[in-house]
Amino acid sequence: MNPLRVGICGAGTVGSGVINVLRRNITLISARAGCPVIIEQIGARRDNSSCPTSDLNVTRNILDVANNPNIDILVELIGGCDDAQNLILTAIDQGKHIVTANKALIAEKGHTLLEAAHKKNVIIAFEAAVAGSIPVIKCLRESLAANQVHWLAGIINGTGNFILTKMGDEYRSFSDVLTEAQTLGYAEADPIFDVEGIDACHKLTIMASIAFGIPLQFTKAYTEGISTVTPDDIRYASEMGYRIKHLGIARQHFTSDNTPEAIELRVHPALIPKTQPIANINGVLNTVMIDCDAAGPIICTGTGAGSEATASAVIADIIDIARIRSNPTAVVYPLGKPLQQLNNKLPILPVEEITTRYYLRIHAADHHGVMNAITNILSKHKISIAALTQKANRDQKGFADIVILTHQILEKNIDAAITEISQLTDINQPVTRIRVEAMS
Amino acid sequence: MNPLRVGICGAGTVGSGVINVLRRNITLISARAGCPVIIEQIGARRDNSSCPTSDLNVTRNILDVANNPNIDILVELIGGCDDAQNLILTAIDQGKHIVTANKALIAEKGHTLLEAAHKKNVIIAFEAAVAGSIPVIKCLRESLAANQVHWLAGIINGTGNFILTKMGDEYRSFSDVLTEAQTLGYAEADPIFDVEGIDACHKLTIMASIAFGIPLQFTKAYTEGISTVTPDDIRYASEMGYRIKHLGIARQHFTSDNTPEAIELRVHPALIPKTQPIANINGVLNTVMIDCDAAGPIICTGTGAGSEATASAVIADIIDIARIRSNPTAVVYPLGKPLQQLNNKLPILPVEEITTRYYLRIHAADHHGVMNAITNILSKHKISIAALTQKANRDQKGFADIVILTHQILEKNIDAAITEISQLTDINQPVTRIRVEAMS
Repeated sequence: MNPLRVGICGAGTVGSGVINVLRRNITLISARAGCPVIIEQIGARRDNSSCPTSDLNVTRNILDVANNPNIDILVELIGGCDDAQNLILTAIDQGKHIVTANKALIAEKGHTLLEAAHKKNVIIAFEAAVAGSIPVIKCLRESLAANQVHWLAGIINGTGNFILTKMGDEYRSFSDVLTEAQTLGYAEADPIFDVEGIDACHKLTIMASIAFGIPLQFTKAYTEGISTVTPDDIRYASEMGYRIKHLGIARQHFTSDNTPEAIELRVHPALIPKTQPIANINGVLNTVMIDCDAAGPIICTGTGAGSEATASAVIADIIDIARIRSNPTAVVYPLGKPLQQLNNKLPILPVEEITTRYYLRIHAADHHGVMNAITNILSKHKISIAALTQKANRDQKGFADIVILTHQILEKNIDAAITEISQLTDINQPVTRIRVEAMS
Repeated sequence: MNPLRVGICGAGTVGSGVINVLRRNITLISARAGCPVIIEQIGARRDNSSCPTSDLNVTRNILDVANNPNIDILVELIGGCDDAQNLILTAIDQGKHIVTANKALIAEKGHTLLEAAHKKNVIIAFEAAVAGSIPVIKCLRESLAANQVHWLAGIINGTGNFILTKMGDEYRSFSDVLTEAQTLGYAEADPIFDVEGIDACHKLTIMASIAFGIPLQFTKAYTEGISTVTPDDIRYASEMGYRIKHLGIARQHFTSDNTPEAIELRVHPALIPKTQPIANINGVLNTVMIDCDAAGPIICTGTGAGSEATASAVIADIIDIARIRSNPTAVVYPLGKPLQQLNNKLPILPVEEITTRYYLRIHAADHHGVMNAITNILSKHKISIAALTQKANRDQKGFADIVILTHQILEKNIDAAITEISQLTDINQPVTRIRVEAMS
């Protein structure tokens, strides 16, 4: 068969992984692809010592790759949005298939790219954009295609999971562990994308679109980071049988006749029962749990980032394209269904409208009447208490932690209660509120 | 697009699941398949009350389905070997694509079927043959196609995992829990396939073929069941930080220049460290862990059997075929590579040639000299002891359990040592030997 000629733009962490794995396993990869796979050109602003490219055709101008008539697939690994979008649109215009690991670009500009690709009858593949080596896109789009997906939840940011794991294991503060993660190279110098949940939200947006057949709606998702979680919260949660994880959660609501009626799309820290397998996924691992009507729950765990783990997903996409490039009917719809069939009527629920359980930590003056004032407010807002403990950690000012687990309640009710509790004169810190997810 | 017309043979547990899920989710399934999916005919010896078929074209003769000119895909869910093989070969001869959940048939007669399908240019898909709803075939064949697989291990028989979990949780004997599993419908009246590891070995054979690019070699795999595991073994293992699971393990050995040189293929009970995620997969769940050179470890967990979980995999295959049926070049090689490229030179190691760690339980007379005699034999065979405990469970005859964990050693050395230990006059029961797997 005709060889597949690959152009790779970006030779950073992921790009060098793709080049190294392609070279190391080229015999195996070509056998599985059914044709020789050839690195035709590399576009990179600078050399990367972890992948020597002196024997390859390297250009400093990535647009050379997009315009190279010998290239069948452009692999976009430069990251960021504007340049990457321009590069991909140029390549699509030249009739090239696209493989990308760029979650921000797919989540935020996906429809522009997918429509352009559809018009030119080329494929955009983005397995590597979500959860590194874990084949979650293919799993949702192909393996679970018989199913109505009820919900999915994932630990989909390795940096955040590393930080929460360390904070809990070593009783250390967020900022302290973040500094260590930056030293180890697990966190960027600007950690906002990871620790504030933006990266996780990009991935969640993509998964939810495929799972529920809805458009990519990054801006409608709710995002909350882990920077306000304290080691005390992790310890108190543990004492009650929970771990705190940074989760992306997407859930479909149905009417009584089983018609989808709304979607929850949210990234935030959450207490998960320790008995749930995903509560025990620690360090930089990622995991995604998908609950479906026929298959039941499926959990996939693996390396969520890094050079060769992400390269594994990029090359899987390249091999898929090698097989199906000559036949447009064989192509999986990039979001699971034809773009025009995506359901753009299903509302994304504002977070105030979700119903879940809550963990509250209230730092309150340790004297009579305080507990009564708090429970009075909760009762007024119809919030039922599942567990309540006053901790014996009274500080010099005479304040101690009260920890409460609630039963299921609408988020706006808990918010109203927290506003009132915060106004009590016996409270001298903001009330901590973390959602509790049963994962079932 | 042309509709895809499906003929389903077998309306038992899985067949009824396929019919029910196809009907319930038909809008969604057709949208994802890119064409209407139609149940054209059902071949079943009798009706099944869990899936009414009065409005469908039902025949009592399954060969009617194979010969029905209106059918594009024959779905074989009758189980067993001879009739199923005959049915599938007839359908292939009629130019129909095949979807099957029949692990025994693929593992034992796969090459006959795959060669027949190759000649007629039709697809045989068998995702449902391994681990129910877990997409392990697609994961190995497509998602990990960039990787050299080092090893894989799985809990791939739900019945066995249910029994071991219960034995451990409730300190009950194998036979006692087996009876309960039969009452609950988790175990067949004839449980041999499940508890003696034959079913797991069928699945392991298929996974190993795809993972390593080798022929299906069921008869060369080593298979040992769980009927000799006792609740004491489970308890002793737990005290040392391990759980006992019934594992299928396939491992590739490499020469120093990274060329594959041999394969391990074995099903047996094993001690796994509790810290490993797969040690905590309990009940009827299945899980498969795959360790690769680029992706690192991937773990997939889900429902390994049952009506709709298996149907989910069957229908995923149907949808794949709907997309790719018109283009043979888009078809994934059923065993990952073209049949003629499978490596039939790689030897399957006899189990005596594997190297691992071992748990030994020796029921020995509790008097002086016995421990010395045992350690003397171990030392003679160059077996290094990692842990040794004499349990305080002396029985009326004055015998007590000695539990030993060894370091890595060649299996034939441990066997030779066990033979000698068994001949000691102070031993009155066969020595229990269970392999210990680090899962790394």
